[in-house]
Amino acid sequence: MIAEIVCVGTELLMGQVANTDAQFLARELSGLGITLRHVTVVGDNPERLKTELRRALDRADAVLTTGGLGPTVDDLTKNAAAELLGKELVLFPEAERAVREAFARMGRPMTENNLSQARFTADSVLFPNDYGTAPGAAVPAGEGKWILHFPGPPRELQPMFRRYAAPFLRRFGRETLVSRYIHIFGMGESTVDSLLRDLEEGGNPSLSPYCSTGEVTLRLTASGETEQDARALLAPVEAEVRRRIGDKVYAVSDDIDLTMADCVIAALKARGWTVATCESLTGGLIAATLVNVSGASDVVRGGLVTYQSVAKTMLAGVPEELIETCNVVSAEVAAAMAEGARARLGVDIAVSATGLAGPGGGTPERPVGTVFLGLATAERTWTVPLRLTGDRARIRELTVKHALDALRRAAREKDA
Amino acid sequence: MIAEIVCVGTELLMGQVANTDAQFLARELSGLGITLRHVTVVGDNPERLKTELRRALDRADAVLTTGGLGPTVDDLTKNAAAELLGKELVLFPEAERAVREAFARMGRPMTENNLSQARFTADSVLFPNDYGTAPGAAVPAGEGKWILHFPGPPRELQPMFRRYAAPFLRRFGRETLVSRYIHIFGMGESTVDSLLRDLEEGGNPSLSPYCSTGEVTLRLTASGETEQDARALLAPVEAEVRRRIGDKVYAVSDDIDLTMADCVIAALKARGWTVATCESLTGGLIAATLVNVSGASDVVRGGLVTYQSVAKTMLAGVPEELIETCNVVSAEVAAAMAEGARARLGVDIAVSATGLAGPGGGTPERPVGTVFLGLATAERTWTVPLRLTGDRARIRELTVKHALDALRRAAREKDA
Repeated sequence: MIAEIVCVGTELLMGQVANTDAQFLARELSGLGITLRHVTVVGDNPERLKTELRRALDRADAVLTTGGLGPTVDDLTKNAAAELLGKELVLFPEAERAVREAFARMGRPMTENNLSQARFTADSVLFPNDYGTAPGAAVPAGEGKWILHFPGPPRELQPMFRRYAAPFLRRFGRETLVSRYIHIFGMGESTVDSLLRDLEEGGNPSLSPYCSTGEVTLRLTASGETEQDARALLAPVEAEVRRRIGDKVYAVSDDIDLTMADCVIAALKARGWTVATCESLTGGLIAATLVNVSGASDVVRGGLVTYQSVAKTMLAGVPEELIETCNVVSAEVAAAMAEGARARLGVDIAVSATGLAGPGGGTPERPVGTVFLGLATAERTWTVPLRLTGDRARIRELTVKHALDALRRAAREKDA
Repeated sequence: MIAEIVCVGTELLMGQVANTDAQFLARELSGLGITLRHVTVVGDNPERLKTELRRALDRADAVLTTGGLGPTVDDLTKNAAAELLGKELVLFPEAERAVREAFARMGRPMTENNLSQARFTADSVLFPNDYGTAPGAAVPAGEGKWILHFPGPPRELQPMFRRYAAPFLRRFGRETLVSRYIHIFGMGESTVDSLLRDLEEGGNPSLSPYCSTGEVTLRLTASGETEQDARALLAPVEAEVRRRIGDKVYAVSDDIDLTMADCVIAALKARGWTVATCESLTGGLIAATLVNVSGASDVVRGGLVTYQSVAKTMLAGVPEELIETCNVVSAEVAAAMAEGARARLGVDIAVSATGLAGPGGGTPERPVGTVFLGLATAERTWTVPLRLTGDRARIRELTVKHALDALRRAAREKDA
C-alpha cells in the first residue's frame, strides 16, 4: 500500500505552528508497513488543495489529510475532496450527537455552523474524535483507493489515528505487523549502524533507527500471518542486537515512547530506593525529568539546585576550601555534592552534576563540556567524568541523560 | 516573490526526524515578505525529486531545497537540480578549502568523496556553512528564477539562512521589511484575536500571531522604502497593541526568540536582586528554565526541589502541622515554601510552586490543575492561586510560565 499525506493550513506555510502531524503519521504509517512517498503542505485555498488531492490520488492508494476541518475554515478539506469525487456531504446523525456532546463536555454553547463538522459523503467511515469536536473519516475514492481526513490539532489527531484509523488501515495489509523498540544510550548512530549493518539489510524483520540527543531507538518490525509468527521472527534478531550493543541497550519494549526516566523510576522502585539530586549546570533539569514520570512521587524525594558556588556550601554543605582547592568543576566537588544531598534528604541514592555548559567559562584544562557526575549510596561514593560537545542546551541535555543512565546502572547493580 | 520548499530525505518520510527546517524556513520567508504556497517532502529518489523540482519551478520564483547534500546521499539534490537545468557541476576552489578546513576543525580525516560537497554549477552563488561541511548555494534556474540549496541539519541550515541566504533574497524585494515581535503571556489566542481583529486586517504593517503554551507572539511587519520608513509605520500600531493588551505584554523586541526567562533575568539584574526557587509539582523546571539564560549565574543562586511533603519540611522548613492543617496544595504552604527558600539561600526574592499536575490525585475541592505560587521578598510574602487545565506536561509548563511572570512583575514593581 502506498500512502501520501496532504497537510492543509496557511498557518503551516507561515511557520506559525510546527507540522508535527506529518512526522507522527509518517512514523505510524511506517509501523503499519505502508510506504509513504510524498508529503505536501498547502494553504487554506480550495483550488490548490484540489490540485494536490487529485495528484496524490493518482500516485497513492491512501491519501491522508490533516487540518481544514471545522467551521472556521468552512470545512475546506472535506468539501474539496467531495467535489473532486463528485459527491455530496450529508449529515451523519451519530456525528451530530458527538459534536453536540463535545460542546456540552466543554461547557460551551454550540452554534449551528458547527454542525458542518458532522457532514460527510454518505459512503464515509467515520473516526470518532475523543478529544475535540470534528470527527475524522475514511472516504472511498474509487479503484479501491481512500481519502482519510484527520483534524489538525495533534492531541485530537494522534489518539484518533491510533484508536480508529490504524485498525482500519491494518485491514488492507495481508499480514500482521509487530514492532519492538530497542532503546540505546551512549553509542553514536554511526557506531550502531556499523555494528548492525547486515541486520538492517534483512527484509523481514526490518530494522530502522530513530535518533534523538545521545540516544538511538531501533524499530524492529516483522510481518507474519499471525502475531505469534511475527514475534517468532523478531526474537532472534532482538537477541542478536542486544548481544552486539551490550549494556548500552537500556530497554527493549513494545512502546516507542518509553523514556530513560521511565526506566530509572522503574529500576529504583524495583530496588526499593529513594533518590535525590544536587544540580549545578543542569539547574534542576535532572529532578524535573525524573518527576515527569507518573508515579515518581514514591521514589523522588526532592533535590538541591546549587547553581552558584555559595549555594553548594549553603545547601549541600560542600566545604568552601574544597571548592577553592579542587575547582568547582571537579570530581571532588561532585562527590561532596552527592554526599551532601544524600545526607540532607535522607535518601538511598543521590546524584549530582557540576560542569561547564558554556558558552563562556572554558579553559584549556577545563573546556566547555567538562562535566562531573557524583553518586552516593550508603555504601559508597563514586564519580563519572564526562567530556561533552555541543551548545549549552545540548550539554545540559546530555548531562541529564548521563545522570539518568548512572542511576539506572546503580539501581540494577548487584552490590551498589 | 513566490517561494516553494522541497525537503529531501527518506528519514522524513519514515518519521525518523521532525521536519523543523520547513517551519524555520516558512517563518523566515514570511518575515522577508516572500509568499510560500507549497512545501513538499520527497525521499532520496532522484526521479521523484526531479519531478517535484520541475513542478516547483513552474509555480514559484524561488525553490528552496533542504537535505540531500553531502557524500552519503551522493549529492542527490544538487545533481538532480543540475540535470534538470542541463548544467554540469564543477569544483569551486574556495568551497574545497572550506570543506578541508571544516574537517580539520573537527579533527577528522577527510576522504576524497567529501570533495563532492565543493561542486556546484559554475554560475552558483555559494553560502558558507559555518557549522558543518556542505556549503549551500543559489543556482540560477532561468527566467529570473532560483533554486536555493541548504543542508538538512538545522544547526547548519539556520545560521546559513540568516547570515547568507536572507541578505541574498532581500535583494529581490523592492522594499525594506522590518519586523517587531510583541510577546504576550496570560491571554488566550482568541481573546488577542478579538481585541486586534481590525489591526490584523490592515495590509501594512501586517500582524500575525504565533502561539505556544500560554503565550502568543505577534509579529508586526512593515515595508517601506527605507528601514526608517518601515519603523515609522510600525511605531503607532505597536503602541496601539500595547494599549489594548495592557500589561499582558511582557516584551516587545526585534527578536522572535526572546523568552520570558530572558526578561525575568534582565528585570532581576536591573533591580540588583538574586533569586531562589522552591518547587514541588514542577520538580526543578522553574530553576532550570531560569538558568537556560546565558548569564543567569549572576542572578540565580539556586533552589530547592521539595517533591515529597517530607522534603518541604526537611529543606524549606515548612512545619509538618501546616501541611496537615492546610493541605500540601495550599496558599499557606506555598507561602512557607517561598519564605523557607528565601531564608535558606539568603536571596532577595524566592518563588515557590505547589499543586496537582495529575493525572491522579484530584478531588472536587482541589481538582487536577490547582496550583499555588508563593513569593517572598524582605518586605512581604504573597501568593497566586491558579486553576490550570491540560495534561501533566502542560500544567507544569504553565506553572513555570506563571512563576516567571510573577517574578518579572515583582522585579518591575515600584515597591515590591
